[in-house]
Amino acid sequence: MDKLHWLYDFLDLTGTFVFAISGAAAAKERGLDLFGICAVAFTVACGGGIIRDLCIGAIPPAGLTNWHYLFTATIAAGLTIGFYPFVQQINNPVLLFDALGLSLFAVTGAQKTLAYGHNAEVAVLLGTTTAVGGGVLRDILLNRIPVILEKEIYASAALLGACIVVLGNYLQWIPDDWVSIIALMICFGLRLLALHYHWNLPVYANDKIRSDK
Amino acid sequence: MDKLHWLYDFLDLTGTFVFAISGAAAAKERGLDLFGICAVAFTVACGGGIIRDLCIGAIPPAGLTNWHYLFTATIAAGLTIGFYPFVQQINNPVLLFDALGLSLFAVTGAQKTLAYGHNAEVAVLLGTTTAVGGGVLRDILLNRIPVILEKEIYASAALLGACIVVLGNYLQWIPDDWVSIIALMICFGLRLLALHYHWNLPVYANDKIRSDK
Amino acid sequence: MDKLHWLYDFLDLTGTFVFAISGAAAAKERGLDLFGICAVAFTVACGGGIIRDLCIGAIPPAGLTNWHYLFTATIAAGLTIGFYPFVQQINNPVLLFDALGLSLFAVTGAQKTLAYGHNAEVAVLLGTTTAVGGGVLRDILLNRIPVILEKEIYASAALLGACIVVLGNYLQWIPDDWVSIIALMICFGLRLLALHYHWNLPVYANDKIRSDK
Repeated sequence: MDKLHWLYDFLDLTGTFVFAISGAAAAKERGLDLFGICAVAFTVACGGGIIRDLCIGAIPPAGLTNWHYLFTATIAAGLTIGFYPFVQQINNPVLLFDALGLSLFAVTGAQKTLAYGHNAEVAVLLGTTTAVGGGVLRDILLNRIPVILEKEIYASAALLGACIVVLGNYLQWIPDDWVSIIALMICFGLRLLALHYHWNLPVYANDKIRSDK
Repeated sequence: MDKLHWLYDFLDLTGTFVFAISGAAAAKERGLDLFGICAVAFTVACGGGIIRDLCIGAIPPAGLTNWHYLFTATIAAGLTIGFYPFVQQINNPVLLFDALGLSLFAVTGAQKTLAYGHNAEVAVLLGTTTAVGGGVLRDILLNRIPVILEKEIYASAALLGACIVVLGNYLQWIPDDWVSIIALMICFGLRLLALHYHWNLPVYANDKIRSDK
Repeated sequence: MDKLHWLYDFLDLTGTFVFAISGAAAAKERGLDLFGICAVAFTVACGGGIIRDLCIGAIPPAGLTNWHYLFTATIAAGLTIGFYPFVQQINNPVLLFDALGLSLFAVTGAQKTLAYGHNAEVAVLLGTTTAVGGGVLRDILLNRIPVILEKEIYASAALLGACIVVLGNYLQWIPDDWVSIIALMICFGLRLLALHYHWNLPVYANDKIRSDK
């Protein structure tokens, strides 16, 4: 299944690229300078993976040691700056690739954690963290409440994908590569459906406090 | 002293539970969704311990690898959502348990750091970090200045508790378990007194700047 | 070159001292209490180095285990509180020492990473992180967008300094100590020139969004 691993690497860098675009676009809208845009792009693309690597003891984190990630994020930041009107128009494609990156990072994050010999709970939590950590760091740097905590089925889709990887790894009914593909497709499909139908997790609004705003 | 260790585990999960309630309540008031409430609850309950474990080399962090913590935090988040009006009314009990959790995390954080063979300064700093780290992460996620930096004797009580543990460990005048109990009671008592009498650390207000607000 | 290493230690603590002053002054302006001011001062002075040490596997981080740093940061916080009007007047000296601390942390951060056997990319990224990480954490704690992402050649100077260290280490044309001095001087000089002439990196403002503010 060598072909699959080529596909993995390609999708991994695709996810990095798309996450970096989303970071660079958000940083540009906040008026950050050239370094700020590149730094936020890199943080969104690699932040989740770096937190995962610190927690599983993969020192130094792959995001810092493998130049592919930095290179991809920098190219993405450069393209975002150069072709910003175009980036704004392709909002739908970006959401599509972002969903792909989310699914892929959730799956590969859970797999890497299992490969380092950690248990199921760690794999699920860190798979989700890999997928959403970058976005959370972006929103912390840009001084706003992380959007993934507020709306839409986003982190939940990543959580489901990571759970499927871990479950498949324990049951061993089918080869791990097939488990990954199934997890990827379910997470990706759920995210797309949530986007299309505007599915949200319940919000338990505190009416009194919200009306004070 | 096996009975004491049962007590420890019970208090540790009690601290986790109460910290998770405080996180879930704060997240709910900000209008976060179901995932956001659970994520913030877990972060407040386990964030300090995870930072400590990363710094002392306890990989993977106990908060990620031991399902008791995740389970306790999720239950606490569920109860907070289901019985929110009740949670609002028991503000005093929550502050009481929060003070207990603070004291306990400061003591166990310092002890775990010493058990990993690190020196006194690391134990004091990471004991305090264990106790207050979760609350700081909560406030960062909810986009506000960490309250522990602004008012009341809170982190200082944790710092004192961690210092007593380290001091007792060096002097070896009395058994470590007694040191823990004494540190716990002093930290807890100081926090309760600070709550009751509204003790604050001095604030050195910059009048000119504050009046500009 | 023993004399040089004395100089290093002196400059390292000078950088810690100056960064702690900048943190304490910012915390005081925000109205934090005594503990908050000390905590922010320590975070600015040691935060970047602690992140670096976590990423290169130097456990526990030097900032936690070596009391010189905590002591220096606490003294700096105390002096800032006691002599605040004086600190306000010496804004230029503080910027000068801050530039020195920035240059030094970039150089020593990159060197330490190389000494732990990591590759060039890790050294450049973590050298920059050491230099600017504390300031980013300060701004996150004080609930604002990190200033280094918004204006002036600051992080870029640190990045350049770290690059020179790594380049010199690979080429081995001249002794490492000389490389450090050259990197330090170039980074320091660039930062001073940027301050003096108000050099900024380009900002790609999104007019439509900015006018909405």
